[in-house]
Amino acid sequence: MNFEEIRKERLEQINKIIELYLPEEEGFQATVKKAMNYSVRAGGKRLRPMLMQETYRLFGGESRIIEPFMAAIEMIHTHSLVHDDLPAMDNDEYRRGRKTTHVEFGEAMGILAGDGLLNLAYETAARAFMMEPDNPHIGRAIGVLAGKSGIYGMLGGQSVDVEAAGQAVSREKLDFIYRLKTGALIEGSMMTGAILAGASEEKVDLIERVAAGVGLAFQIQDDILDVTSTVEELGKPINSDEKNNKTTYVTIEGIEKARRDVKEISEKALAWLDGLEEKNEFLRELVLQLINRKN
Amino acid sequence: MNFEEIRKERLEQINKIIELYLPEEEGFQATVKKAMNYSVRAGGKRLRPMLMQETYRLFGGESRIIEPFMAAIEMIHTHSLVHDDLPAMDNDEYRRGRKTTHVEFGEAMGILAGDGLLNLAYETAARAFMMEPDNPHIGRAIGVLAGKSGIYGMLGGQSVDVEAAGQAVSREKLDFIYRLKTGALIEGSMMTGAILAGASEEKVDLIERVAAGVGLAFQIQDDILDVTSTVEELGKPINSDEKNNKTTYVTIEGIEKARRDVKEISEKALAWLDGLEEKNEFLRELVLQLINRKN
Repeated sequence: MNFEEIRKERLEQINKIIELYLPEEEGFQATVKKAMNYSVRAGGKRLRPMLMQETYRLFGGESRIIEPFMAAIEMIHTHSLVHDDLPAMDNDEYRRGRKTTHVEFGEAMGILAGDGLLNLAYETAARAFMMEPDNPHIGRAIGVLAGKSGIYGMLGGQSVDVEAAGQAVSREKLDFIYRLKTGALIEGSMMTGAILAGASEEKVDLIERVAAGVGLAFQIQDDILDVTSTVEELGKPINSDEKNNKTTYVTIEGIEKARRDVKEISEKALAWLDGLEEKNEFLRELVLQLINRKN
Repeated sequence: MNFEEIRKERLEQINKIIELYLPEEEGFQATVKKAMNYSVRAGGKRLRPMLMQETYRLFGGESRIIEPFMAAIEMIHTHSLVHDDLPAMDNDEYRRGRKTTHVEFGEAMGILAGDGLLNLAYETAARAFMMEPDNPHIGRAIGVLAGKSGIYGMLGGQSVDVEAAGQAVSREKLDFIYRLKTGALIEGSMMTGAILAGASEEKVDLIERVAAGVGLAFQIQDDILDVTSTVEELGKPINSDEKNNKTTYVTIEGIEKARRDVKEISEKALAWLDGLEEKNEFLRELVLQLINRKN
């Protein structure tokens, strides 16, 4: 099978795993459960659980203990999308061609569905304790997952981004936003995979650096595509950053430097990954495709 | 020292513990941290961490491992208040005489501060693993904490309450709302205390029933006070349920039956507690006061 065939197979597998941990749409609280499932089932590339699972494989992980964590990180990611779309935030009515959660279920239910997903992520991750009560890595994995998702991670980056809307942003602040808002959850995905597979402290640190590079290159590539792509290629509006007066890596550094930096950052991340004795060819290819993507 | 003096001393202690786990208001994301601290520092009786700590003491718990969990449950409770107050939910501008978080910091920051607190609760609880990596109870405690906070607990009750606004509510649905919205977090508090102290499965189950009774009696008492108290006694507007056309235990069952049921439910809960060989006189008194409170 070529890369794309394997990716599709893995994606299907991941979707099945996520489904296992979604709530049954029953009981008096069926509506909030429906809203949560609606959000998660909107789909997407399941990039974070995929990176988590492949990093777990990289370090020889073979147990199903990774599965609740894979579902958990996708719930955390989806929670952030649901709340980002709210009227008080980005006020988006559509995402991936479907109505956003609060448009479909009302604003109160949008807030509660996001809360419900964030909390369900930890309920789900904690299920790993029932699977392997004596596994010494689960506690640390939950700590890292939570740390990378909160105000020192994703939510912190999101809060700075919200506050900076419509203002000029310094390169230092932009780096902070990118590192936290996009990077932190990718770091959390890959680190959790490494930790649960029992990788050494040094290797978990190295994976954190790889993931930070991947996250940053991914985000800069996003800025580049916004100005160089066509609507057809990207599948969403282009030049949205300019329309929103948004400071991006491209508006600060220019398109040429942005391209050079994506190349440099991603080459460094791949070199770190290649320096490991452990190998996962699919993970390497996945990282490459992420950075060089056209949409 | 009498009960009230001990309670005040413990409350001070609890506030110090919570402070230990609140974020420093620094960095680019200082605003969201300020909003979170503002919400938590609005004060209150710290009922949930107090019940947790006293249940931990009841079963002979003596380690500081309980402290991150005490902070965590107060963060989860505060998160629910911050989000309940949002314009799309109850749209409250004041709480305990201070502006609500979204009024003080803006709606986007209100949403993010609530998210930040919910996530920080799990970051904080996970710190227990660093304190006692081999403690076998931490994982289960996190599972119970998350379970009682989410859509099968507090958030589930909240979502049904939101959806039922302005509608006639059956006794069955009202019981569901009370059990989840108010009861679940009290169950989570006391069960976590018992689990971390190493109480047996049977005793944790008994504590769950005690806590469910306390939660239900507490909520019915709330409904009674809303119609029988004066503004001076209650320290907040009275007859608010009638004004909001809200179905309560009192509107369904009448004031006399409500009073009898509070008495019966709380006597049963206390009898269960008294049936244990372990004793904690302060916890017993705390439960009594909660049920018989005038405000």
